[in-house]
Amino acid sequence: MAKVFVTRRVRFNAAHRLHNPDRTEEWNRATFGKCNSPNWHGHNYELEVTLLGEPDAATGYVMDLGELRDIIETQVLDKCDHANLNLDVDFMSGILASSENFAVGIWRELEPHLPPGLLYSVRLRETENNWVEYRGD
Amino acid sequence: MAKVFVTRRVRFNAAHRLHNPDRTEEWNRATFGKCNSPNWHGHNYELEVTLLGEPDAATGYVMDLGELRDIIETQVLDKCDHANLNLDVDFMSGILASSENFAVGIWRELEPHLPPGLLYSVRLRETENNWVEYRGD
Amino acid sequence: MAKVFVTRRVRFNAAHRLHNPDRTEEWNRATFGKCNSPNWHGHNYELEVTLLGEPDAATGYVMDLGELRDIIETQVLDKCDHANLNLDVDFMSGILASSENFAVGIWRELEPHLPPGLLYSVRLRETENNWVEYRGD
Amino acid sequence: MAKVFVTRRVRFNAAHRLHNPDRTEEWNRATFGKCNSPNWHGHNYELEVTLLGEPDAATGYVMDLGELRDIIETQVLDKCDHANLNLDVDFMSGILASSENFAVGIWRELEPHLPPGLLYSVRLRETENNWVEYRGD
Amino acid sequence: MAKVFVTRRVRFNAAHRLHNPDRTEEWNRATFGKCNSPNWHGHNYELEVTLLGEPDAATGYVMDLGELRDIIETQVLDKCDHANLNLDVDFMSGILASSENFAVGIWRELEPHLPPGLLYSVRLRETENNWVEYRGD
Amino acid sequence: MAKVFVTRRVRFNAAHRLHNPDRTEEWNRATFGKCNSPNWHGHNYELEVTLLGEPDAATGYVMDLGELRDIIETQVLDKCDHANLNLDVDFMSGILASSENFAVGIWRELEPHLPPGLLYSVRLRETENNWVEYRGD
Repeated sequence: MAKVFVTRRVRFNAAHRLHNPDRTEEWNRATFGKCNSPNWHGHNYELEVTLLGEPDAATGYVMDLGELRDIIETQVLDKCDHANLNLDVDFMSGILASSENFAVGIWRELEPHLPPGLLYSVRLRETENNWVEYRGD
Repeated sequence: MAKVFVTRRVRFNAAHRLHNPDRTEEWNRATFGKCNSPNWHGHNYELEVTLLGEPDAATGYVMDLGELRDIIETQVLDKCDHANLNLDVDFMSGILASSENFAVGIWRELEPHLPPGLLYSVRLRETENNWVEYRGD
Repeated sequence: MAKVFVTRRVRFNAAHRLHNPDRTEEWNRATFGKCNSPNWHGHNYELEVTLLGEPDAATGYVMDLGELRDIIETQVLDKCDHANLNLDVDFMSGILASSENFAVGIWRELEPHLPPGLLYSVRLRETENNWVEYRGD
Repeated sequence: MAKVFVTRRVRFNAAHRLHNPDRTEEWNRATFGKCNSPNWHGHNYELEVTLLGEPDAATGYVMDLGELRDIIETQVLDKCDHANLNLDVDFMSGILASSENFAVGIWRELEPHLPPGLLYSVRLRETENNWVEYRGD
Repeated sequence: MAKVFVTRRVRFNAAHRLHNPDRTEEWNRATFGKCNSPNWHGHNYELEVTLLGEPDAATGYVMDLGELRDIIETQVLDKCDHANLNLDVDFMSGILASSENFAVGIWRELEPHLPPGLLYSVRLRETENNWVEYRGD
Repeated sequence: MAKVFVTRRVRFNAAHRLHNPDRTEEWNRATFGKCNSPNWHGHNYELEVTLLGEPDAATGYVMDLGELRDIIETQVLDKCDHANLNLDVDFMSGILASSENFAVGIWRELEPHLPPGLLYSVRLRETENNWVEYRGD
């Protein structure tokens, strides 16, 4: 049977700041530069969730992308859209809000709510020049 | 020797409808929603065909992308562009016209016309939020 | 007071066919080529609706873009999304489904539902290479 | 002599919140919805600055776009990039941080630093679905 | 009768160099910087040609965009695609190859070949950050 | 520990020509067509450099993307931006300037300057329809 990758893209807007509270203000400014600005900055995040599986014989779907979108909305967008990643998002609490850590956090939020073994990757675009991807390894 | 991925993107416009004739109208409406609309809808499909191989010493090409484009035109675009996937496309006859099945169908149309072992993936973008990819497995 | 242009983009998927029933099949094929294909083709349409007005002192908005989106949804998307422009859309009945005519039709659907004098333009992108715009003149 | 429009695009990332301090919390929540979130959200703003003028005979330029970029950097990006529009940006102090008001503010920052009569428009894209434009009227 | 804007986008690849032969090498380097590099550089140009006119009653077209594309190909692409703007393009001979001058040159090439009064603008995108537009004034 | 892919995109403009000096003019014209034009053509190249590694506990970064950008600038952009790939770029000297060979050359320039084992892929987009990727194999 053929295995096919299917991807759903969603977008959301959030504020964040790169700051490690275990280090000095000086270290944070030197390390993170503008991304450490005290009053936050923000992004139009683009999130691409990819599944890998066999299309169902009756529907032709690896998974109904409307169902996938609903799961992403409940597990990710309801928590992150128009929110502050550092202050408002439970699964980022105590975690440095880099794109890398955020993508891993999103994977861990989504994975238990999806059919076992289906999630292949979480790609997060922060700007048109920077993006990250996590495949669960 | 270095192995390089090369990709050619083409675009085409087609109508289709998600409908399983072995199921009731009710099941089809409940399963496919708007995608089951009786009078069809359509898309600007983007097709990205990726090869993986060693660049030729004399040309620097894995394959002449003009030749690849011609093969895609003959095998895929001549059949699918400005067509109805359900009614007009021979290789989708009797197959549910989901993106997943369509990408697998395109792979099977292209593969015999390409140098052996060169085709790596077929990626099909249906909207800016949804896309699928098939790698022949 | 400053006058500002504000634009809301929405997307929808539709099938259509260019066909003039007052002319012969031959004329239609010669004039419209592939766009005359009998079994329809389709597009991912992008619709950009632009207003021109003074921002409200209390809200900073020319118009709440959520309200604008709701009007576009009711007047345009509910009729056109996942539909056949020739067969299903009341305001295109008896009208040749070119992008030009479709943009004019969308303007006429939207204008009576918007605050007087606010609508500035309707831009409709049919493919990444072709688009039209109507400004009510 | 020919008059030509020239445009320079820049991007920046900022946090903001829609909030009218003269109104109740209730009114703000009802009016601005998620955009009123207390802990801010943010955007990848795209700013397109358009000039209209005659190309110089010696350079072929309406204006050296490197000089234009430097002016945009000093007058806008140094103040707004990785900043909080409500808390950090002097020219938005006391002004509701809607896209409309922000575009007007940017025009007023840029205009005195450009050759007289050259500035034609300031377009600000907040998301891929929403943008505004101000032409100084 | 309604007047509608219609736009056709085409793309081409060309080399060029900004250099004013009436000035010193020093002046050219100081004025044009990297764009004066002696061995040329190049761009993926995007050309957007916009017409303004009334849709024809029988076709729904302001102009058949296939015919427009053919005129653009003959008058512009056949001369400019995979060419050197400074050395190979007759209508740029003796003209500084800035985007501004190039857009004016393209207008003058196209205008005599189009139905009178139809051409509205020529927009030329040189990079994703820089573009120019000429409307014949 | 999680392993995350991080990508930095940069853009540059260059001229080039496909030409194999060991073959006849005739062979070159027949093989490379317009890409063999004697006076060069050019592109807006987009270069996407992807690393794969574990985010640092203190910074949340696989690598500071500002440092990565600096390395790309020194090793690639300073040599290739606004340059002629055939005449000006040391690491392409004597190598046919196809996208495939250019991507391999960029990998070899970058790899020794990055932390060992971190470089995952070099993707080079030549036009919106053609791109290549090299992963070091």
